[in-house]
Amino acid sequence: MPDTCTGCRRQAGVLQRRQDARRVRSRRHVTTRKPFRLAPENGSCSLAAMFQSFDAIANPEQGPPRLAALREVMAEAGIDAFLVPRTDRFQGEFVAPADERLAWLTGFTGSAGLAVICMDAAAIFVDGRYRLQVRDQVTDEITTLDPAETEPGAWLAENADRTSRVGFDPWLHTKDDITKLAKAIGDHDVLHPTPNLVDRIWTDRPAPPVQTVRAHPIELSGEKSSSKRKRLARALKDAGQRAAILTLPESICWLLNIRGDGIPRSPVVQTFAILHDTGRVSLFSSPEKFEHLGPDPDIDVDGAEAFGDAVGRLEGPVRVDGQTAPWKIAEILEDRVAWDVDPCIMPKACKNDAEVKGMQNAHLRDGAAMVEFLAWFDKEAPKGGLTEISAARALEGFRAQAGDLLDISFDTISGSGPNAAIIHYRVSERTDRKIMRGELYLVDSGGQYIDGTTDVTRTLAVGEPSDVHRDCYTRVLQGLIAISLARFPSGRAGRDIDALARAALWRKDLDYDHGTGHGVGACLNVHEGPQRISPAGTTRLEPGMILSNEPGYYRPGEFGIRIENLVVVRKCGQSPNKRDRLGFETLTHVPFDRRLIDTRLLGPWERKWIDAYHADVKENLSGLLSASASHWLDAATRPLG
Amino acid sequence: MPDTCTGCRRQAGVLQRRQDARRVRSRRHVTTRKPFRLAPENGSCSLAAMFQSFDAIANPEQGPPRLAALREVMAEAGIDAFLVPRTDRFQGEFVAPADERLAWLTGFTGSAGLAVICMDAAAIFVDGRYRLQVRDQVTDEITTLDPAETEPGAWLAENADRTSRVGFDPWLHTKDDITKLAKAIGDHDVLHPTPNLVDRIWTDRPAPPVQTVRAHPIELSGEKSSSKRKRLARALKDAGQRAAILTLPESICWLLNIRGDGIPRSPVVQTFAILHDTGRVSLFSSPEKFEHLGPDPDIDVDGAEAFGDAVGRLEGPVRVDGQTAPWKIAEILEDRVAWDVDPCIMPKACKNDAEVKGMQNAHLRDGAAMVEFLAWFDKEAPKGGLTEISAARALEGFRAQAGDLLDISFDTISGSGPNAAIIHYRVSERTDRKIMRGELYLVDSGGQYIDGTTDVTRTLAVGEPSDVHRDCYTRVLQGLIAISLARFPSGRAGRDIDALARAALWRKDLDYDHGTGHGVGACLNVHEGPQRISPAGTTRLEPGMILSNEPGYYRPGEFGIRIENLVVVRKCGQSPNKRDRLGFETLTHVPFDRRLIDTRLLGPWERKWIDAYHADVKENLSGLLSASASHWLDAATRPLG
Repeated sequence: MPDTCTGCRRQAGVLQRRQDARRVRSRRHVTTRKPFRLAPENGSCSLAAMFQSFDAIANPEQGPPRLAALREVMAEAGIDAFLVPRTDRFQGEFVAPADERLAWLTGFTGSAGLAVICMDAAAIFVDGRYRLQVRDQVTDEITTLDPAETEPGAWLAENADRTSRVGFDPWLHTKDDITKLAKAIGDHDVLHPTPNLVDRIWTDRPAPPVQTVRAHPIELSGEKSSSKRKRLARALKDAGQRAAILTLPESICWLLNIRGDGIPRSPVVQTFAILHDTGRVSLFSSPEKFEHLGPDPDIDVDGAEAFGDAVGRLEGPVRVDGQTAPWKIAEILEDRVAWDVDPCIMPKACKNDAEVKGMQNAHLRDGAAMVEFLAWFDKEAPKGGLTEISAARALEGFRAQAGDLLDISFDTISGSGPNAAIIHYRVSERTDRKIMRGELYLVDSGGQYIDGTTDVTRTLAVGEPSDVHRDCYTRVLQGLIAISLARFPSGRAGRDIDALARAALWRKDLDYDHGTGHGVGACLNVHEGPQRISPAGTTRLEPGMILSNEPGYYRPGEFGIRIENLVVVRKCGQSPNKRDRLGFETLTHVPFDRRLIDTRLLGPWERKWIDAYHADVKENLSGLLSASASHWLDAATRPLG
Repeated sequence: MPDTCTGCRRQAGVLQRRQDARRVRSRRHVTTRKPFRLAPENGSCSLAAMFQSFDAIANPEQGPPRLAALREVMAEAGIDAFLVPRTDRFQGEFVAPADERLAWLTGFTGSAGLAVICMDAAAIFVDGRYRLQVRDQVTDEITTLDPAETEPGAWLAENADRTSRVGFDPWLHTKDDITKLAKAIGDHDVLHPTPNLVDRIWTDRPAPPVQTVRAHPIELSGEKSSSKRKRLARALKDAGQRAAILTLPESICWLLNIRGDGIPRSPVVQTFAILHDTGRVSLFSSPEKFEHLGPDPDIDVDGAEAFGDAVGRLEGPVRVDGQTAPWKIAEILEDRVAWDVDPCIMPKACKNDAEVKGMQNAHLRDGAAMVEFLAWFDKEAPKGGLTEISAARALEGFRAQAGDLLDISFDTISGSGPNAAIIHYRVSERTDRKIMRGELYLVDSGGQYIDGTTDVTRTLAVGEPSDVHRDCYTRVLQGLIAISLARFPSGRAGRDIDALARAALWRKDLDYDHGTGHGVGACLNVHEGPQRISPAGTTRLEPGMILSNEPGYYRPGEFGIRIENLVVVRKCGQSPNKRDRLGFETLTHVPFDRRLIDTRLLGPWERKWIDAYHADVKENLSGLLSASASHWLDAATRPLG
């Protein structure tokens, strides 16, 4: 699933579903499990509860009364304009229902956006992906703007007469966001931190998520939390910093080897923390949630409400990441702030052997589930009875049987024909479409397993593909192969290899308007940087980093193609100048649709790579499949010849 | 010819040769000229005067007395250490004999280096290319250091007791150089600008170059100087700058549509200039040189010695490029300086249609000369009588017959067998080697023509090449083809496409330790940025930029392969996100050695590109060749089949 643009966030399902708590087992090898049950022929899922919902939500009529209520409290607070972002305090891609303020106020359920409500005007800023959706969901009283064309700060500056006091919740905006906004407005004194005014009027607001915290075992984390804390404390001392504020849940989960289940699609625990230069960690969440993990003399837990005061008592300099930390932190610390990157980000991005092993194991089970799905799809789709939703339901059903699935890692993108050309398509009852012969079907999906996070895209022919389908598909596949085969001296960043994935498309003046790959967490978020393969990817690639490799091609109104594997950066020898040479090992084990490969377009190394990959898929998934899927895989992975 | 590293400079011949003044003719089409004479069979050149010299210069014994003399004047001036760089005031790659201070003092004739002379110690800093050469040329009294391992500033800091007053000629070092040095030393007060102390003891110093200035006609420049000055003056006004100091000869030549002949290998006029925000230009050189160009009310010429005072009289802010301007400028202007890039650099880099047309024409004549050479070489080399020098002489002879050759654009790299693995090999009488059967021969060369600058590399088989030769050559060629075929949305820089040139080598864990391409001037310097294709190339590629495309592969002690074409960036349609799509048009017309192409390794698009390129070469050079070369070209360019 591509990470299109800065701030690109995948849509979170509005309904939050909880899965049963699962026993955490340590493992080094693939779980032995029962063969897959065949899915029912009509594609409906046999599971009682699905993770994904396909509801079409569009209640523009809710907007006007809620706007009116907000304006009343704005007037009471002496505020001319109030900012309502989609993010919560943790700046993550997925938020709890209690934090869906933007959706509640405006009706807009997209994964990124910002509303600016003035007394006699209102605007919502959403990027190109949501241009159509926002019109369905939001009242005409709110003007829709694209931040690529009109920045919120510029709009505020233009409406200066109505916005002399702009209120914002200092916990929901980062320091960088507010600085940028203030610069665009041209007047820093206009912006006023205030308590959240939406919360004052949201009377039926859902309860905050009930989070269960569980230990992420050493067999999967590969390093004790105490060791990680020691390493990071040393780095703080070396930098002369007394403490670091940690506000990203994935950083804290990595540092403490814990996981949670409070929000959909991401197994993080939502909490803030302070890492002291002694290695001690202060957590700010409900202490009772951590009790069952046993006492640790170097970790103390206090209530979430104690966080601000604790930050206030810190001696400086205190390391704070301006890109992700709430503006409030800067307000509290004042001149004690040392702006610096979250110290967990790089060590978390470079997975150790145990983390990679867990990801490999999760990918084998996930690959088996995908192969079951593909075999089933191949039989069912040509009959004409499938829809985008029924296919997505069936896939979730196969994934649920894979073993140790906690959640899906994002809402499945299940698109046929022209819908596949919508890069971040989210199928709903309203947009659902029959999967028809002669069309392409694109499915981008993934799972959150106890041992790893997956993300895989395949594009499938239904019936006989056209020559254009085959030509474009083959070029996209050539891009994926080029990244798979890349070997480069250490020091190169994602932007240095992005073009490899596009060259075959470029030769025919084709391209795709998203990055080639995003970082992926190990049992954490499916989008997790700083590594990425894209023209904007300036972070050096390091051994252990996991990335997606997902070139595509989209012809609006006609068809869309994307093929995605996850890969891990590995050392592989030395370059002539004695630098380490790096390359990628592919984690994903799922065959490509050979009907879509035009072998006449391939170079000899490309044929060889496809055959070797398919042989590898077959070998690694043997024993994990039902008889019929195993039979299907034999045919799907035979050499191209 | 690759531009290996920052500050990589090609070796300038110590002996400067002048060519006869040539009549400047305007032209729109290729010069009609007589067919090539066949070179004599022994490969000796029929020209009376060659541009290139093959002298082996190594006089380490000159060092000690000259060091002693320098130390005497240092003592008189109260200086503990004195810096002697290879550069002149213009920071160019090629310098006049009168400016070869480093070579005169130390014996070292490499194209980049810095000597630091203390009273009882001395060091010379040269990069890896010159590690062997410097030992031959320089006395043991001077320690050789590699700046990649020991920076001059660090060395000075370590020797602080002997270097409490470090003198330097403020005209020979840039502001950035001195800032970096001061930072490394950790004490800004140590560095003292002084008159050049080498000049005080260099009694037999050659006279400064006698420069002839000629107009570069509108047919080749494509834009009147007055128009360029108007554009730039407007940019200065927009930036609130009263004037810009121009210290790069190529910038001034571009701005004023002039060329010169004072230094080898580069047709620039060495002068400084001031561009005022009115569009008026003040030049500082001998006024009589410019008289024959006629008066221009917006250009005044004063003597070189008047420059400092003129700068001193300027009202600020004055634009100065800290990367290239002498430190002295900052000293004179003090707080009137506005550090900013030389305003000529980007417009000069983006060639207009007339400049591209001139480059195309020069490349056709140069291609014809290369084909004559290749046909001759193919006949002569297997006989076993050729050496690296005799081949280089013959090539210069063919080039001299091409029409309108002013100079070669750099000393030809003519390397056989293991010598070809030395990336910046300069053949001399001492290193000259027979060209033997079963070896590869690499020739990297170019011409300065009235209408354009060329730079081309071909690697040739002598007798039957080995399978390893063919494998490696084919991969290098695949890299060149990948760049040739690249189509990318505007906004991409050289680093974004560099990997394309390496992918085929990477697949076999091979690589090359230099950039893929450097910028090239139009009738100016053969290395002229800011554009480049390399991991360090962060300048966006723009239409009209000319670059080399020169991947390679080197096996030290065995063989070297490099293939180089020049290309120009062209618009070619639009990308899906409505940005301009850019690609490359190849300027160089010279066939590849088909005996070295292993067609089994090629993708279908690579075969197609080679055949199309060869057909294009044949078509474009027809009518420019001798009968025998034309016959040879027919065979060399037939389809791969």
